Amino acid sequence: MAFKIGLLGLGTVGSGTVKILQDPAQRHPLLQELEIYKVGVRSLDKPRPVEIPDEKLTTDLESIVTDPEVDIVVEVIGGLEPARSLILKAIQHGKHVVTANKAAIARFGAEIYTAAEAAGVYVLLEAAVGGGIPVIEPLKQSLCANRIHSVTGIVNGTTNYILTRMKNEGGDFGDILADAQRLGYAEADPTADVDGLDAADKLAILASLAFGGRIKLEEVYCEGIRNVGAADIAYAERLGFVIKLLAIARREPQLSPDEPEQLQVRVHPTLVPKQHPLASVNDVYNAILIEGDPIGQVMFFGPGAGSGPTASAVVSDVLNIAAILKVERGNATKPDGQPLLDPLLACSHQHYCTIAPADETVTRFYARFLTNDSPGVIGSLGTCFGNHNVSLESVVQTDVRGDMAEIVVVTHDVREGNFRQALDEIRTYETVNEIASTFRVL
Amino acid sequence: MAFKIGLLGLGTVGSGTVKILQDPAQRHPLLQELEIYKVGVRSLDKPRPVEIPDEKLTTDLESIVTDPEVDIVVEVIGGLEPARSLILKAIQHGKHVVTANKAAIARFGAEIYTAAEAAGVYVLLEAAVGGGIPVIEPLKQSLCANRIHSVTGIVNGTTNYILTRMKNEGGDFGDILADAQRLGYAEADPTADVDGLDAADKLAILASLAFGGRIKLEEVYCEGIRNVGAADIAYAERLGFVIKLLAIARREPQLSPDEPEQLQVRVHPTLVPKQHPLASVNDVYNAILIEGDPIGQVMFFGPGAGSGPTASAVVSDVLNIAAILKVERGNATKPDGQPLLDPLLACSHQHYCTIAPADETVTRFYARFLTNDSPGVIGSLGTCFGNHNVSLESVVQTDVRGDMAEIVVVTHDVREGNFRQALDEIRTYETVNEIASTFRVL
Repeated sequence: MAFKIGLLGLGTVGSGTVKILQDPAQRHPLLQELEIYKVGVRSLDKPRPVEIPDEKLTTDLESIVTDPEVDIVVEVIGGLEPARSLILKAIQHGKHVVTANKAAIARFGAEIYTAAEAAGVYVLLEAAVGGGIPVIEPLKQSLCANRIHSVTGIVNGTTNYILTRMKNEGGDFGDILADAQRLGYAEADPTADVDGLDAADKLAILASLAFGGRIKLEEVYCEGIRNVGAADIAYAERLGFVIKLLAIARREPQLSPDEPEQLQVRVHPTLVPKQHPLASVNDVYNAILIEGDPIGQVMFFGPGAGSGPTASAVVSDVLNIAAILKVERGNATKPDGQPLLDPLLACSHQHYCTIAPADETVTRFYARFLTNDSPGVIGSLGTCFGNHNVSLESVVQTDVRGDMAEIVVVTHDVREGNFRQALDEIRTYETVNEIASTFRVL
Repeated sequence: MAFKIGLLGLGTVGSGTVKILQDPAQRHPLLQELEIYKVGVRSLDKPRPVEIPDEKLTTDLESIVTDPEVDIVVEVIGGLEPARSLILKAIQHGKHVVTANKAAIARFGAEIYTAAEAAGVYVLLEAAVGGGIPVIEPLKQSLCANRIHSVTGIVNGTTNYILTRMKNEGGDFGDILADAQRLGYAEADPTADVDGLDAADKLAILASLAFGGRIKLEEVYCEGIRNVGAADIAYAERLGFVIKLLAIARREPQLSPDEPEQLQVRVHPTLVPKQHPLASVNDVYNAILIEGDPIGQVMFFGPGAGSGPTASAVVSDVLNIAAILKVERGNATKPDGQPLLDPLLACSHQHYCTIAPADETVTRFYARFLTNDSPGVIGSLGTCFGNHNVSLESVVQTDVRGDMAEIVVVTHDVREGNFRQALDEIRTYETVNEIASTFRVL
């Protein structure tokens, strides 16, 4: 029983999606039941980083979303049209849809979800916010018992990269933007990122999920980072803050129960106290902090963009739909039999993992020795470690009291067994009084 | 259509669970379909932080797990027995189970999941690791397309609290443990936490999910924090590290494809480079870092224990099961009708949220002014803000060039409209040359 995927688009995210689907080893076994059935592209001759048999490729994207064989349509062409029309047509033809398209969902979410509701199909969009970081599904499922108070996110990698470099280098916005464009971290037309529009799309989606209602994109307040000057960053630093482009959705306090509930939904550069969890999210990383009752604060951190991370979210959504379909089909064909479990929720593995013996594991170590303060001790330690194939990163003699010395050693990656053997030998040295401590180093 | 819950235990987590169930406003609407049907307790007369009608309380826990009316059994009594027997009996009677019991799952997971598989019921356990932090469900669902390379976690709040205080205060393990016990952060018998056993239980569960196989608890290497001395923490600091109790599960590199795949599964104090995301996870907080292909690194951070956060995970699991039951029952009664959607996965809300006008939002602000370097300028700014109900946290004159001064202001929480009005007035002042920038402060 295979689930047939119609993939729309074979750009960065589409290629990443194909790479996962073509390489199922050590991933969830359900992946082996997914089939790349058709792939819609703009041009058939373009060189691509993945291999797709010619007969699966087509430039007729509409033929994919209307094909009765297709179970799940994956839309990764981006942009507003024809993405919107193709998604709607796929839904009308009873296909489940997975999309990474924040722009289309933020603008046409109402139309798309109304159609999906009517047709009884899922439209999943984990990849639309935070790249591969799980945040949509945790909001829908893992945190669903909470009353969400706020969602605060660094959800645009380009602006976070620029702000991080401005802070670290003391440079000006214009210069660093130009350099980011040169390096591929910013688009030739940087408007959507730099003016906060991309973050606003994502915030509209997050707020809708967090607060259980739709959001009109034009009601999201949006201010970009063009006005953040080097002087502001320097002052913020002196005052104990870093400047971040934050996307914030928050329930307003209700002054009386008769008042309608109100939200704040806004994107703008923000001074964040240095000790705040979001303050240390740097470069192109994204993070989303969710506050709720009774969870308190939870934060999700990771790569907010890129082919692989975004494809991770796309394929995971596809698997979630396939899991549901598997249950439905199984139950339909076995009306009186044992109900089938959703294979992602159930723990159906029965075999035992093989655990490596401790001596075989490879890690870095830290060790502290109390030794005589005599010449040659460091040399004898170094020689012993070397004889046991333990390579040292640093050796520091850190303290001397009377005729005693303290020596701290940090190793490179070593086989634990080798390190232990070296310690056993060192323990016999007359110049070493004590191995005071040993720890692993990440 | 209500889903009937049989709750085993009314301690810290049980009371937190009841609090959520009795207060569904602003949470997921499916909560209103959950009913606390029976609550099993050790003693009927004990005073409790929540109110349960007498007829729902019973000391006969077995009567709950065998009651044909009960749909979902929530096990929050903890410990090994009678938890194990009650979970198994519930499964035999066709109940879905939600548990927070890492000790029982780490030891009897094989038996419990084999029984669940045979009976066709779910056993969900989000609360067993990381308290309320979503990590089990993201591993099962949101990251399921990945080949997981490693899971590295700070999963024990007590030891992280002790290590954080040792670092900040330079104190000794014994003194700080005693103080933590006095303050309720450590148990009277701290063995399970301090010797890493609790972390090992959680790691066994995480590794099993990450790598799709069962784990024998006795094969998890386990070393606690009793040997971490103040001197070690000081040296680690000087070398650029902090010491954390880490739980690490990792695939070993396969030297040839014929070799069986091996895992490292270990709990021990570890020197973590200060710039590593886990290094800044302090106090009782937990965090789990997952590395996979193609996701790269993602980290989940939040409160690892406590009544509310743990109950958040318990009730979310209950809702996930109720959502599945709702689909099953709906489809069963409407064989030819429109399929019902899982209400947690579908976006079925149709109304629009009301967005607060920007002027009404309340936040802190930072503003930088270029002014004449003449007496009374700070006074006039302060008076103007005061007249508009804008309370100031700090005013700093930061730079003077020739006859110019720069003044930076940080406000307390203010209505944005008031702040804007004050700025409009300040703009007319002859002594103020420019409002160079304004930003919001978190």
